[in-house]
Amino acid sequence: MVSRLEGAALAALDAFAIELPSWGFADTGTRFGKFRQPAAASTLEEKLHDAGVVHSLTGACPSVAVHVLWDFPPDEDPRAVARLARRYGVRIGSINPNVFQDQGYKFGSFCSPDEKVRRAALAHTLDCIEIGAAVGSRLLSLWLADGTNYPGQDSFFRRKERLEEALAVIYRTMTRKWPRATLLIEYKRFEPAFYHTDVADWGMACAFARHAGPRARVLVDTGHHLPGANVEHLVAFLLSEGMLGGFHFNDRKYADDDLTLGSIDPYAVFRVFDVIAQYEWMYGHRPAIAYMIDQSHNLKPKLEAMVQTVCEAQKLYLKARLVDREALARAQEKCDVVGAETLLKSAYERDVSPLLAAWRKKRGLPVDPLRELRASGLIARLGRERAAARKAHGEAPDSSYA
Amino acid sequence: MVSRLEGAALAALDAFAIELPSWGFADTGTRFGKFRQPAAASTLEEKLHDAGVVHSLTGACPSVAVHVLWDFPPDEDPRAVARLARRYGVRIGSINPNVFQDQGYKFGSFCSPDEKVRRAALAHTLDCIEIGAAVGSRLLSLWLADGTNYPGQDSFFRRKERLEEALAVIYRTMTRKWPRATLLIEYKRFEPAFYHTDVADWGMACAFARHAGPRARVLVDTGHHLPGANVEHLVAFLLSEGMLGGFHFNDRKYADDDLTLGSIDPYAVFRVFDVIAQYEWMYGHRPAIAYMIDQSHNLKPKLEAMVQTVCEAQKLYLKARLVDREALARAQEKCDVVGAETLLKSAYERDVSPLLAAWRKKRGLPVDPLRELRASGLIARLGRERAAARKAHGEAPDSSYA
Amino acid sequence: MVSRLEGAALAALDAFAIELPSWGFADTGTRFGKFRQPAAASTLEEKLHDAGVVHSLTGACPSVAVHVLWDFPPDEDPRAVARLARRYGVRIGSINPNVFQDQGYKFGSFCSPDEKVRRAALAHTLDCIEIGAAVGSRLLSLWLADGTNYPGQDSFFRRKERLEEALAVIYRTMTRKWPRATLLIEYKRFEPAFYHTDVADWGMACAFARHAGPRARVLVDTGHHLPGANVEHLVAFLLSEGMLGGFHFNDRKYADDDLTLGSIDPYAVFRVFDVIAQYEWMYGHRPAIAYMIDQSHNLKPKLEAMVQTVCEAQKLYLKARLVDREALARAQEKCDVVGAETLLKSAYERDVSPLLAAWRKKRGLPVDPLRELRASGLIARLGRERAAARKAHGEAPDSSYA
Amino acid sequence: MVSRLEGAALAALDAFAIELPSWGFADTGTRFGKFRQPAAASTLEEKLHDAGVVHSLTGACPSVAVHVLWDFPPDEDPRAVARLARRYGVRIGSINPNVFQDQGYKFGSFCSPDEKVRRAALAHTLDCIEIGAAVGSRLLSLWLADGTNYPGQDSFFRRKERLEEALAVIYRTMTRKWPRATLLIEYKRFEPAFYHTDVADWGMACAFARHAGPRARVLVDTGHHLPGANVEHLVAFLLSEGMLGGFHFNDRKYADDDLTLGSIDPYAVFRVFDVIAQYEWMYGHRPAIAYMIDQSHNLKPKLEAMVQTVCEAQKLYLKARLVDREALARAQEKCDVVGAETLLKSAYERDVSPLLAAWRKKRGLPVDPLRELRASGLIARLGRERAAARKAHGEAPDSSYA
Repeated sequence: MVSRLEGAALAALDAFAIELPSWGFADTGTRFGKFRQPAAASTLEEKLHDAGVVHSLTGACPSVAVHVLWDFPPDEDPRAVARLARRYGVRIGSINPNVFQDQGYKFGSFCSPDEKVRRAALAHTLDCIEIGAAVGSRLLSLWLADGTNYPGQDSFFRRKERLEEALAVIYRTMTRKWPRATLLIEYKRFEPAFYHTDVADWGMACAFARHAGPRARVLVDTGHHLPGANVEHLVAFLLSEGMLGGFHFNDRKYADDDLTLGSIDPYAVFRVFDVIAQYEWMYGHRPAIAYMIDQSHNLKPKLEAMVQTVCEAQKLYLKARLVDREALARAQEKCDVVGAETLLKSAYERDVSPLLAAWRKKRGLPVDPLRELRASGLIARLGRERAAARKAHGEAPDSSYA
Repeated sequence: MVSRLEGAALAALDAFAIELPSWGFADTGTRFGKFRQPAAASTLEEKLHDAGVVHSLTGACPSVAVHVLWDFPPDEDPRAVARLARRYGVRIGSINPNVFQDQGYKFGSFCSPDEKVRRAALAHTLDCIEIGAAVGSRLLSLWLADGTNYPGQDSFFRRKERLEEALAVIYRTMTRKWPRATLLIEYKRFEPAFYHTDVADWGMACAFARHAGPRARVLVDTGHHLPGANVEHLVAFLLSEGMLGGFHFNDRKYADDDLTLGSIDPYAVFRVFDVIAQYEWMYGHRPAIAYMIDQSHNLKPKLEAMVQTVCEAQKLYLKARLVDREALARAQEKCDVVGAETLLKSAYERDVSPLLAAWRKKRGLPVDPLRELRASGLIARLGRERAAARKAHGEAPDSSYA
Repeated sequence: MVSRLEGAALAALDAFAIELPSWGFADTGTRFGKFRQPAAASTLEEKLHDAGVVHSLTGACPSVAVHVLWDFPPDEDPRAVARLARRYGVRIGSINPNVFQDQGYKFGSFCSPDEKVRRAALAHTLDCIEIGAAVGSRLLSLWLADGTNYPGQDSFFRRKERLEEALAVIYRTMTRKWPRATLLIEYKRFEPAFYHTDVADWGMACAFARHAGPRARVLVDTGHHLPGANVEHLVAFLLSEGMLGGFHFNDRKYADDDLTLGSIDPYAVFRVFDVIAQYEWMYGHRPAIAYMIDQSHNLKPKLEAMVQTVCEAQKLYLKARLVDREALARAQEKCDVVGAETLLKSAYERDVSPLLAAWRKKRGLPVDPLRELRASGLIARLGRERAAARKAHGEAPDSSYA
Repeated sequence: MVSRLEGAALAALDAFAIELPSWGFADTGTRFGKFRQPAAASTLEEKLHDAGVVHSLTGACPSVAVHVLWDFPPDEDPRAVARLARRYGVRIGSINPNVFQDQGYKFGSFCSPDEKVRRAALAHTLDCIEIGAAVGSRLLSLWLADGTNYPGQDSFFRRKERLEEALAVIYRTMTRKWPRATLLIEYKRFEPAFYHTDVADWGMACAFARHAGPRARVLVDTGHHLPGANVEHLVAFLLSEGMLGGFHFNDRKYADDDLTLGSIDPYAVFRVFDVIAQYEWMYGHRPAIAYMIDQSHNLKPKLEAMVQTVCEAQKLYLKARLVDREALARAQEKCDVVGAETLLKSAYERDVSPLLAAWRKKRGLPVDPLRELRASGLIARLGRERAAARKAHGEAPDSSYA
């Protein structure tokens, strides 16, 4: 028998969908090199297959974020990609333009001093809008690598003007061609730019979003902050301002380490979910938040890392829904610091595995999705098959640092 | 003969006024104790005297920021304080309410769960508005120590609502009683609160200021950021948004260390002045910016530290005005990274002491104000006199950490 | 029925003693002021009383760290203090010289350029050695506030020489007068010094300890690190080098925030206990580690905060003892990253409250010491009594920031 | 006419040699991709050519650090490389094994749980020793990418044991085959490992070096620290302990950003040179320190960046030699904080370009090496030639993030 609180928490879990990134199944690495995994996906179909596997194990990942440059062949109908996704039991989620990888983007994309480069970035983004509309997505997710490496390299003011100009065109085009979509603007403190980034923090992303228009929001990547930042606080602030659009989930110890969610500081992740639950409790409505994963699994097998992340997110999300909101509010009103903290923390420390097991069983899902995956031998099989396929097509060479 | 660029730079220096904090002449310390200086000011008159000394040596500090709680006797006409200031050659600058020191503020001021406390904070601030209007100041400068020490201690949402409510009343009252004043909202990452602060970063200060009204602005304390923050970038962003109100100057290596400006990273201070100079050059108008010092001189003699700070600020300000803006813009347009950086840095590295010496001579100021102060024996004399005076009144006891 | 692993874990818990700091029961604060608590201890007897209360509730705190300056009246036999402690059910633990509070220590203690100051610091420390020997303590715990605020202020080399000289005398004296004692050398990155501290990190503390002699060790305060430091790794390193002496426990988000243990990042605390458990498992012996609390309870009631900290430490310590070491080692050998991580984390996530409850019940302790304390009304009663007593003796005035 | 102090400073500059990294002339990038420069070197000969250019312009870079994996063809006599270097006016400097790039090093090199991998790393390093001895180098410079990404992934203790074992073999082999060489051990906080690195800080590098043997030293990469680290202090500490081996120079704002030296915080670089100068002044001998550059020029033209770095290093080095040591020591003894700081900073702020110009002129070097390079059109010419050569050999493909 579940209590009323537990019942409400499980109902919230029903609606908690986590989007998988197509690039999270491919080989990625650090600037010092990539460690290749035999089972890594190298085609779009393989990525969609793998996303389908994660969704079938967890029941929580109906959509897949795509990187247009990597995932959409230029001459193909994007609806073919959407059909392919459906074949693997998922759908296309957020659309991610890539305006950082071409050689032209050396000094930025929308912020580049070079007008030709800015136009190329814009053209690619407008293409993405067409694609997004065609595949029925609802999100255009914009991360810019724009920034500078040295004081004096470029003007903060000029760059801000250029970006505002581009966002205005993008937003206008979305309004016309893709009216139900939301524009998400991501911020990042540094890397690959090392002196300044043009959208450096939530405040800047929020200002750009406000200038762009009412359907623009801020995208919070949990790893894109300076050391010590109180992420749950700024999430609450964005919620309160009506400007939170979604998350790129991952964990970090130092910089944008892109580790699996909750692997370094699970209590901090819980606190992010807590402020969302608290917001819903206080204001009585559920804001539209896109929960997405953005991790780089250099060492962990990609499928294992994804399943582990989804399970961790569900666990911490559920715990946050088990906080006794009324008792907590009373303790807070009385300035009972120890009492309030204890209420919050006892929800965090609660063993929710029985609740989660029951929830999964009811949906016909494996009770321990990670164990199920590991027991299945799937990764080893994929490794053999994909290695053979890559060999047949001529294997990609290893890249070198210098 | 000065060049056209030098002439313009020196003209800018003419208008560069730096406000001194009355509390910067008094004994301050760390939580581990205060090291008392015989020459430290302990009365308002002594503080104003010392500010007058700094202004007479540097010619750059016509105004003094005051802390209402410490500097305005409750039963006295505030205009008497203004008259006293004038006697020492300075005037009253920004008005700083103190809503952090009373025992009641243990859980916050405007954000406290306790309505009585919130009302007390508001009453004190409304008093400050009366005082500000009476003494002819133009700035209400608000720093809140509000925050929490533990997750769960209080609700971010409730606290934000309470603060917005208070700011609305404050702003409304200012409009009515002190219409020419600007409300400055300061932010700080931590200390004395160690889990969250209610106005944690420039983005939050900016949102609160925007909600308050058109004459509210953000106050940037250069030491109130997380490690690695690019302060000049956010200053540029605030300028571009029309939301920069002023500065609390100091330097830091770790946290809010309150060291003298430019003592740790002078190039970073130069870059702050650079974005302001660049803004004026690009947009053709000089924004109203309050330059104020907020330092805690634990080890340095207070008067020496102030004079040193003002001279350092003038030196770096002048250097920033000597950047060849047109050549820099051209190098930036061409993406000539090394060329642009070299232009910026050569201005930073330039020896401006001859220019400054000439500027000072022309104004009848000592060419080296710090050396003049040190040679005068003033600090030793003040030390003797004030020690005697304190003894006569019964010396304050040392405070202990625990 | 407990398993073999659980049995061993509970046996380890039996031996897990946590030392309470006498100063943790007194009013402390930040540089912005102290918020006074009616129930705060202001005499040594009150501090010992409160420590006794914590010990009687938790059964884990047999000793109390003392600050010689604050706790030992200069003209009294230190053995009287030891007797007083026994009356409250505790004994005197580590001896902490205070070489930072006197006005003379403005520029350092053992590192000061002023020879008189160095001699005073040494004399006080030699007194502490006498006291430590007299009261039967086994630890001299040395934290220095020494450092500088500005580049150039003093010579790193001269200061290092002065400190080595002082430590040689201290060590020699201990050898002679207090041969069973260990010298603990604590390090800290900053505060109250803001440019450099003379014992800045574990590497420096370790070098000073090695130069001092074989009974000198490093004391790790969990809050004395730069952001991002991997504390469990350096703890492991010190263990491996035979140089770990003990801990000052607390938690932090930004700087030396002195929050209650596990309140910000409980998983990190667990990982510290994990490396200790792993060390014992691998090398088959239990190193002598002094577990001590050093927190500053500005907002939480002091007694509550202490009991909460001890319970949190016991909980996380016990969890770390429940890691399946053999399975973990196997997963590590196979480079099974997800498998190894899962083993570690499942111990962390385990609900150990039933085990702890049984352990407490068996010892006649309250099953939930914090709830017991809160239900007892003790803090309110102490508040009334101590407020009355302070009033009778003339209450201490509030200290002001400036 | 130069003063005595200036004369001594210039004499010190004569002996200030800066080693160039062969990999610094090749295309490098971030994990998000490489921006290719037409003039980037892609063969060893091109790298040596470019190093020769920098040395001919600056007169300060007689040697080139080599990465054995990238620079030494497996089947060739290493002495051929040494001869090639001489042809371009430079010699082979430090020898850098590469034990991080091969797919085998996924879980570490010397610290890997896999014995085969450890043996491969050792074999490569022993090869490097042969090469170092053959080419007449004096330095084996060891940077390990070893570390883990997740708590629990591997045992800190086992990894430390494995590394100590490997270092013992390496050291023994050096003693036998390359007795005049020094082993430099580099540390790094994170990247590419994101939870722990096996040689994380100077304290660990120092312990490993001490265990290895008397000719092992610590290598300080200026970018390998946590935010806020006082690098000059630890450099002084290492000097005092006789354990400083050398530097990898670069600058950074956030992490290991690998920007050009002095581009972000030139005063901090000056302070590193200052402690070295102070050490020599105090102890009367010049320690053997290897000054080496390790930067990643993603945006700046590589040759420009190198020349700029060398000139910046010389400028800051010279300034540090112009500190009035005796006056500074006197001010420090008197605890004259402002006076001592002013002495240090006036040397930093001094315009040394006339001194440097004279020094260069005397050596037949261009007075402004960077301007000379830019005026020469060399980079454009190399760009054309090397692009053509790469095209002839089949151009390398762009690498992609995912």
